[in-house]
Amino acid sequence: MAANSLGDHGFGRMHTFKPLLIAASLLALHGQISAAEPSSTYSKADLRAANTLRERASTDDTAYQLVQSLTTEVGARFAGSAGDRAAVAWAVREMQRLGFSNVRTMEVKVPHWVRGEASFTVLEPSSQSMPALALGGSVGTAPEGVESEAVMVKDLPALSALPTSAVRGRIVYFNNRMERTRDGSGYGTAVAVRAAGPALAGSLGAVAVVIRSVGTSNDRFPHTGTTRYSPEGPRIPAVAISNPDADALERQFASGKPVRLQITSSSRDLPQALSANVIGEIPGTDRAGEIVILGAHLDSWDPGVGAIDDGAGVAIMMGAAKLIRELALKPRRTIRVVLFANEEFGTSGSQTYLAASAAESARHVLGFEADFGAGPVWRLSSRVNPAQLPLVDQIHRALAPLKLERGGNEARGGADLDGLAKLGMALLSPDLDGTDYFDVHHTANDTLAQVDPAALRQSVAAFAVGTWLGAQNPGNWERVTTPKPPRR
Amino acid sequence: MAANSLGDHGFGRMHTFKPLLIAASLLALHGQISAAEPSSTYSKADLRAANTLRERASTDDTAYQLVQSLTTEVGARFAGSAGDRAAVAWAVREMQRLGFSNVRTMEVKVPHWVRGEASFTVLEPSSQSMPALALGGSVGTAPEGVESEAVMVKDLPALSALPTSAVRGRIVYFNNRMERTRDGSGYGTAVAVRAAGPALAGSLGAVAVVIRSVGTSNDRFPHTGTTRYSPEGPRIPAVAISNPDADALERQFASGKPVRLQITSSSRDLPQALSANVIGEIPGTDRAGEIVILGAHLDSWDPGVGAIDDGAGVAIMMGAAKLIRELALKPRRTIRVVLFANEEFGTSGSQTYLAASAAESARHVLGFEADFGAGPVWRLSSRVNPAQLPLVDQIHRALAPLKLERGGNEARGGADLDGLAKLGMALLSPDLDGTDYFDVHHTANDTLAQVDPAALRQSVAAFAVGTWLGAQNPGNWERVTTPKPPRR
Repeated sequence: MAANSLGDHGFGRMHTFKPLLIAASLLALHGQISAAEPSSTYSKADLRAANTLRERASTDDTAYQLVQSLTTEVGARFAGSAGDRAAVAWAVREMQRLGFSNVRTMEVKVPHWVRGEASFTVLEPSSQSMPALALGGSVGTAPEGVESEAVMVKDLPALSALPTSAVRGRIVYFNNRMERTRDGSGYGTAVAVRAAGPALAGSLGAVAVVIRSVGTSNDRFPHTGTTRYSPEGPRIPAVAISNPDADALERQFASGKPVRLQITSSSRDLPQALSANVIGEIPGTDRAGEIVILGAHLDSWDPGVGAIDDGAGVAIMMGAAKLIRELALKPRRTIRVVLFANEEFGTSGSQTYLAASAAESARHVLGFEADFGAGPVWRLSSRVNPAQLPLVDQIHRALAPLKLERGGNEARGGADLDGLAKLGMALLSPDLDGTDYFDVHHTANDTLAQVDPAALRQSVAAFAVGTWLGAQNPGNWERVTTPKPPRR
Repeated sequence: MAANSLGDHGFGRMHTFKPLLIAASLLALHGQISAAEPSSTYSKADLRAANTLRERASTDDTAYQLVQSLTTEVGARFAGSAGDRAAVAWAVREMQRLGFSNVRTMEVKVPHWVRGEASFTVLEPSSQSMPALALGGSVGTAPEGVESEAVMVKDLPALSALPTSAVRGRIVYFNNRMERTRDGSGYGTAVAVRAAGPALAGSLGAVAVVIRSVGTSNDRFPHTGTTRYSPEGPRIPAVAISNPDADALERQFASGKPVRLQITSSSRDLPQALSANVIGEIPGTDRAGEIVILGAHLDSWDPGVGAIDDGAGVAIMMGAAKLIRELALKPRRTIRVVLFANEEFGTSGSQTYLAASAAESARHVLGFEADFGAGPVWRLSSRVNPAQLPLVDQIHRALAPLKLERGGNEARGGADLDGLAKLGMALLSPDLDGTDYFDVHHTANDTLAQVDPAALRQSVAAFAVGTWLGAQNPGNWERVTTPKPPRR
């Protein structure tokens, strides 16, 4: 997953006038009034098939094999890179091998930023070199680097509170530490520094930014992730250091002596490149025109090999769809797996998908997104029309052997389905346990070793059952008309 | 700690004729026959002081403050580097601050190898770049690197079993995985590949070596450590990759397709440099001429900041000596803390110490070494004259509140006291728990975050009580005449 608090990319605003229109046409399509429809009940055959899926998932290692194959044969696949192109070919091949229908690619323009090498050195009071990663999109430095006295602040409000004289010409060090939580809620507050810190510091006259990584581990891995400059403001270089190094730097500040830092980075932008969303389907039957969309993203940050972000999500979705395809029963609605390009560096994959699907966006009746690691699933949340909560309860009961908590109806979803959700598409969210996710997120340590095969199987079970029952809804998936809260 | 299975450095062999002579002179000195001496019993005052030490250690954070200070204000301190020199100054200052006597340095010539940058890329069958660290002492490559088809073997015997035609012109990949153990016994077998693999592969015509790191973690940190070329053989470049990358590389080999690798490294040797052993004492009283030596090493590998290897050992020894100095009672024997230079890259610090102390080596009656992480201590082992085992039992009983297991009399000791132990010096070994030690050992991840303050306090307690009672031995510390087994 990418920064969830980066806000709208303009796209959501562009479409804010549409939901009612779309909802209206959907209602016309089915000739029903959503608010009045009572909850329907699943057939025994559908529930038996759900049990079959759950049981088969418990011994099926397709998902693990997929994430192993993707991380071994492709590895890192940052937007615009050779790995990105290799990943698209891999996904097409694997979807075809698994017997998906209508396997195709949708061309996506992606920015092409290259990391280069970054170095970070504390020059004074005590000389130390520390591993650093440039923030995604950061400008590089001149070869000799940037060197200056530094000022330490906790976060954006603390920086804003400083007099300009304390910032001008300085390197700003943001020292805020992210909190570990199961649901990822610690990320939202922490990531603001990464997303907006360099832009703010630049506007105040700073010459560079260093951040304590947005991550929860005490291992010495810096965490990268996108930063965003303001179009009108100065663009200053920005790097992240690991938590243990941030602790050491904090102690150097605590000495009371001036802290002098040096940063070098050869990050740079290359011309825009081409990538692709990869799409495959399990065709529906009597409601084939309605789409249950399973979203994950195919791209990854460059330092790791993208096992938990988001190889696992790719594998969960493909593994769940594969199990459904192997059922004797065929789904009512079409299940569409979309592996989005470039979630990490601006979500141009999902923006392209949304634009290309504008005419059929209302046909996307239900969405699932897996972009929060390799499981297990611990809770079932939703964002549905409240009249349909009893149906979600039925799905939760069908998942009873997995002992999931019953979450609320405020599921925020991930970045790639955000556009469709804002248009009123219902979301079902088998919530992946994120307790350890931010130990590894956006680091070089995002490798297959972080994926527990048993947790992955359990996650496939939850997504497969949820998807199947989502596709078999005996009534309609109503549009969701309450304003969507911002993603974390 | 450095490679324990690197064998003798010539020094041990040089002195093998001496132990009997020295033992004889020591016996003459004390006018006693060791085998006949009954075990003596500690006075109540000595045992009360041992209790006081243990209790004070449980609330004294001197050791943690020392390792924090060393890793923050000095950081990495590889032999010959600026950090190495800064560490010597740090140690002198801290020993003086703690009130040690006779604080002094002993100049040590050290090799000066610099790592530079290493890169490792799998070119075929699936292109992947993986983080790599040159092995210590490895030669670099030409700027364009070394590129060749690779052959995978488990270990040295497996390589030796191959026909020369399978090795000549190839890059050899050693895939052996180290076993996790509490006592570090997994290291001995695994480290042979690192120490001798490049020399062997070079002698068989290989062009470079890659090893699966000698380490137990699945985090993406390569582990460095010394390799040794044979004087007459070719010197080929050698790098280590992390366990998760080794798993991925193993899978590429498992594809059955040819595996083509590229290695670049800018490692090189610089002229020999100067470092120093740093020595401080708690003076003895009636047996001041006898020395209880506490050894740890001040140098560290360059990628990390040397918190567990061996900042913790330095801190444990200084913290233990500091507590003894603060007792109302004064020790009978002199307690000498020696922070050795350059343990990691050839043990020239301890060799220099041994040569400089040749005339007084028999005065070193008992040794403790801490070079296996930050604790806790889980067992008390020894290498003493068997007649003195009842005394070790008494020391073990004095440590009863720490619930230590009672180890055997085959303590192997560490690298820095190996020379003195081979000359017959007794060893007491409060064994540090090494279960997780090789997760971090010789990696960039060796930071203060790996040190648990409570475990460190407990370790100081064990070493302080052991040292105190060692210094108060009511009889003599007899020489150990059984041949010393090789260190692991």
